[in-house]
Amino acid sequence: MGGDDAPRATVAGAVRAARESQIPIFLVGDAAALEAELARHGPRPAGLEIVHAAATIGMEESPGTALLRKRDSSIVVAMNLVREGKACGMVSAGNSGAVTGAAVLRLGMLPGIERPAIAVVFPTRHSGVVVLDVGATVDCQPGNLVDFAYLGVAYAKSLLGQSNPRVGLLSIGEEPSKGNAQVKKTHLLLKDSPLNFIGNIEGKELVRGEVDVVVCDGFAGNIVLKSVEGFIELMLGMLRQQIHSRMRYRLAGWLLKPALLTMRGQLDYATYGGALLAGVNGAVIIGHGRSNAAAVANAIRTAQRLSEYRIEEELPGAAKDVG
Amino acid sequence: MGGDDAPRATVAGAVRAARESQIPIFLVGDAAALEAELARHGPRPAGLEIVHAAATIGMEESPGTALLRKRDSSIVVAMNLVREGKACGMVSAGNSGAVTGAAVLRLGMLPGIERPAIAVVFPTRHSGVVVLDVGATVDCQPGNLVDFAYLGVAYAKSLLGQSNPRVGLLSIGEEPSKGNAQVKKTHLLLKDSPLNFIGNIEGKELVRGEVDVVVCDGFAGNIVLKSVEGFIELMLGMLRQQIHSRMRYRLAGWLLKPALLTMRGQLDYATYGGALLAGVNGAVIIGHGRSNAAAVANAIRTAQRLSEYRIEEELPGAAKDVG
Repeated sequence: MGGDDAPRATVAGAVRAARESQIPIFLVGDAAALEAELARHGPRPAGLEIVHAAATIGMEESPGTALLRKRDSSIVVAMNLVREGKACGMVSAGNSGAVTGAAVLRLGMLPGIERPAIAVVFPTRHSGVVVLDVGATVDCQPGNLVDFAYLGVAYAKSLLGQSNPRVGLLSIGEEPSKGNAQVKKTHLLLKDSPLNFIGNIEGKELVRGEVDVVVCDGFAGNIVLKSVEGFIELMLGMLRQQIHSRMRYRLAGWLLKPALLTMRGQLDYATYGGALLAGVNGAVIIGHGRSNAAAVANAIRTAQRLSEYRIEEELPGAAKDVG
Repeated sequence: MGGDDAPRATVAGAVRAARESQIPIFLVGDAAALEAELARHGPRPAGLEIVHAAATIGMEESPGTALLRKRDSSIVVAMNLVREGKACGMVSAGNSGAVTGAAVLRLGMLPGIERPAIAVVFPTRHSGVVVLDVGATVDCQPGNLVDFAYLGVAYAKSLLGQSNPRVGLLSIGEEPSKGNAQVKKTHLLLKDSPLNFIGNIEGKELVRGEVDVVVCDGFAGNIVLKSVEGFIELMLGMLRQQIHSRMRYRLAGWLLKPALLTMRGQLDYATYGGALLAGVNGAVIIGHGRSNAAAVANAIRTAQRLSEYRIEEELPGAAKDVG
């Protein structure tokens, strides 16, 4: 029921993932609304099932209060399906704070991980870079950031296929002495860890393709993510304005249109369908509010892939017991 | 002597500012190198004078050590000209840490301001927004951020011509409860101040033109600035790659070239010539390492404009005594 265009985009995305990738899916939300939306897509795909949830949590609701009051909300009902082992993962384009809270409460944390993180895959010149946290844990201790590094490495292996992901710490200079107090302490901890830590990286190196995992606290990560989104919007707006300003540019814009759409696709994180909720005991994907059907279908595929991967085996301590 | 293309770009920029804007200029650095560069520009413009400095501080040198050892460096010699009242301001495209350190030591701080900040003017849809700090003071107290707000307001008035600049606090949500501990405390202080505080703003609102001054600590500001630079680079690189990939796009690229150059100019902060060193007692501009002649000339013009404006009258307390 979440997202700017819900349940239209979520239902269309689920139908697509069920048809194209044969993934069995529970559609959780207002049954009547979901039935009506589903009817627009012809015969119901095999393995697609509606699970009724009486309430929905709005984008502007305070997560804490909403979770307490609406125990029958679609987010909570979907999370319970994961908790009970009926679903292998959960996708939502709704209130990210409520999804995070419900996941922590219903699924619990992975062993040894204290705080959740939201991870996104940024595009780079070559493939992608996992950046976390972009907004779940705002005030972080250095130990939390080290946990995020392990989680990021697990994603870089499972999603990007990196065998020995390079880990960087977001800071304002390469030298270990550069950064705020929190970053300086974290640098020392990461240096002593068995991770492939390449040191501090600056903002401009984020997308150069020379690092696979970038660690930061939820405050820094969120302002970087949103600022970059704002600038991409500004640049595309400026380009649009230029193209419409003269006949010559209008022609160029028409010729260039397929290339611009390709670029937009490369810049969009719709490829993975959204952000990954890291640190909780389950595969949870938080889609962008403006997710379209393609993004929702990709999020469902990403959740399935993630659920097949044992993240906990990448965490400190656990590796030795298993391997 | 600072910058990637020094002293060529700095001398060319100084000649341009002297000729086009009749600004008297001291060129500070290795006299022989500067004479040789100047000779390339025909007759020496009136009011352009060379002041010899035996040493230069490199981009990679540690500012603290370099300032202690090289008391005859071009940065220190230039700063002394300001201190002695011989120059009204100082422009450097060199080591920003050394410029900041030399300014604090030689010029001192403005009354009531404890820490320096580096301010940049980001482009927006309408005009520009002053963002500070982008790297001078990494670990900030809430009181420092309030000082930066006053300094930013002074710049928005003097450089952008805003009569009642709107001040925003960079955070991860609009509600006063959103942000890290430092931001939440700063929010309360700004709310109680006489400034035109419009509340928290998110990264994506940075360039929307609805705020004139954005306050953040030097860590957050620096990673935002550098990340945005990295993404602009990535997008321009992607566009270049697309344009070269097919004949059709090559034609479009040729048609669109003047528009792309206009856009690049709008995105570039060469308009103001660089960043402003806020909080010190003098007009100091720190140019980008890759400053070209136009950026250097603009920085010189900005320094002159700033030196005519009494920043200290905008600071808390001072206003009443004067006004």
